Amino acid sequence: MTMPHPHLEVRRAVRAELADVPPDGAVLVACSGGADSLSLAAALAWVAERAGLRAGGVCVDHGLQTRSAERARTTAATLAALGLDPVETVHVDASNGPRGPEGNARTARYGALDAAAERHQAAAVLLGHTRDDQAETVLLGLARGSGGRSLAGMPRRSGRYRRPLLDLGRETVRAALPAGLTAWDDPHNADPAYARARVRHRVLPVLEAELGPGVADALARTAELVRADADALDAQAAEALAAVIDTELPPLEGYQLPVDHLAKLPRAVRWRVLRRAAVAAGSPATDLTAAHVLAVDALVTEWRGQVGIDLPGGLRAVRHDGALHFSTRR
Amino acid sequence: MTMPHPHLEVRRAVRAELADVPPDGAVLVACSGGADSLSLAAALAWVAERAGLRAGGVCVDHGLQTRSAERARTTAATLAALGLDPVETVHVDASNGPRGPEGNARTARYGALDAAAERHQAAAVLLGHTRDDQAETVLLGLARGSGGRSLAGMPRRSGRYRRPLLDLGRETVRAALPAGLTAWDDPHNADPAYARARVRHRVLPVLEAELGPGVADALARTAELVRADADALDAQAAEALAAVIDTELPPLEGYQLPVDHLAKLPRAVRWRVLRRAAVAAGSPATDLTAAHVLAVDALVTEWRGQVGIDLPGGLRAVRHDGALHFSTRR
Repeated sequence: MTMPHPHLEVRRAVRAELADVPPDGAVLVACSGGADSLSLAAALAWVAERAGLRAGGVCVDHGLQTRSAERARTTAATLAALGLDPVETVHVDASNGPRGPEGNARTARYGALDAAAERHQAAAVLLGHTRDDQAETVLLGLARGSGGRSLAGMPRRSGRYRRPLLDLGRETVRAALPAGLTAWDDPHNADPAYARARVRHRVLPVLEAELGPGVADALARTAELVRADADALDAQAAEALAAVIDTELPPLEGYQLPVDHLAKLPRAVRWRVLRRAAVAAGSPATDLTAAHVLAVDALVTEWRGQVGIDLPGGLRAVRHDGALHFSTRR
Repeated sequence: MTMPHPHLEVRRAVRAELADVPPDGAVLVACSGGADSLSLAAALAWVAERAGLRAGGVCVDHGLQTRSAERARTTAATLAALGLDPVETVHVDASNGPRGPEGNARTARYGALDAAAERHQAAAVLLGHTRDDQAETVLLGLARGSGGRSLAGMPRRSGRYRRPLLDLGRETVRAALPAGLTAWDDPHNADPAYARARVRHRVLPVLEAELGPGVADALARTAELVRADADALDAQAAEALAAVIDTELPPLEGYQLPVDHLAKLPRAVRWRVLRRAAVAAGSPATDLTAAHVLAVDALVTEWRGQVGIDLPGGLRAVRHDGALHFSTRR
């Protein structure tokens, strides 16, 4: 069997992902200057020229590292040399925010990319995540232990964002980097202070050694299957919740969920309904764990007169008059 | 915070698991002679005496190792000394069968346990799997990459079988082993020729070191959540399949699935319907991969006149006249 050349594989993946963009449409690539997104940018430039698409690039400078502004300038020059136009460099401030350095950087990055997409009326923004990034994301989700959605990894598409390289190994993507282009190695990627770097350099190699070289592939496939499961059940939960809430009442009072209705739902759907109701009533999604949801579920299925369940955000779930109520703790 | 004594935790778990067994009911414990199942047997003896249950034990000798018959006799004597009655030793022959040594041993073991349960009219047969066994099972399933069901681990209950220790760490279970009882270390558990042994001794320790000591717990919780998801979607798929097959026709001709009906199902349900239909039409479940199912799915959702998809077991899925057909390859 002859293997296709890496650059053909990457270009084919980009072309397939852009098949639905109308001629003359605009596409942006988000580029950190790292090998993966630089390889993606090169493939986009090649594909766009032949498909008659306008293709530009956005380099985000988080200002988190010394010389990051200089690096962003170099990356922007590389993208322009590849033929991308327009090329923008945006500087974001991730030093403030409620989510810690990685979370703040993420929020700031997507804000900047959204703004750039609006400015250039881009139909799509391409991200350079590979199958190996996906495998890492699944393992990180697994370690959180919060079930299906946390194993579902990154979606192939989400709004304007698309990840054309999600089926390709990092090795293939890097091998496709045109000769002469110099990629930048993000020191974060090797810094064991970051969980993702530990997964990449210490966990996945052990999994591959002990369970076989197909592990990254298996993890990425798992993500796709589990994502479909979570999508189907989330949709059913949204429907089930909409069927029981009283939209005439203000949110808090409106979330009175009849126990007999809840008890008839499959557990997987009921747990999602309870989680959604708690979040809608004001419990922060990031703090609400599977253990909280299971405790609320026990009010439905193992009712022995429990007093109520305290939830993050100063909420309390109680059962009375045959219904679950979510109210503010006093 | 005072931690409860391990033997109290193990007894409480066994008591809770047996709460629905009627007084005077009989319960058996399957015991390999290893520390986990021996600890379970000791807890069962203690709980059963106080709850007025009859409790017995079954020691299975697979004959796979030298001196295994002698070990089974020693274990049986230990169980009898704990007060279990009856205690049986059953010898099974795992040297033949279609599933390889581990699979054959498993089939033979459950056959022997089923027969013992019938002989003693046991309401339940207890198995000594711990939270750590569950975590290992999830990781092995993850490495297969076949999605939800393969991540769902072992069920707490399945027919007459119950796993009361599934929420407890192996360390707790072993610490609860009464002084004076000598457990046997199965050399398979340390033999790197077995994938489970490699997961136990090489993979999980790295995951715990890199991602935190709660990993086994997170994996076990994942199994519970993912199992609920798979249960709900499997039930929906069974219903959807029953709605489209024509039970008047013989199985092969009966599995003509109308494409328009399939296309309306959520992907997660449709993939399960296609898998069930292929298995029912004769494709061996163990050989039918997610990749096969996705290829058949493309006949529904990305139809461009494909010739058909070859499936394990000499089957072929084709689309014509607006329906999928599963037929024997010629």
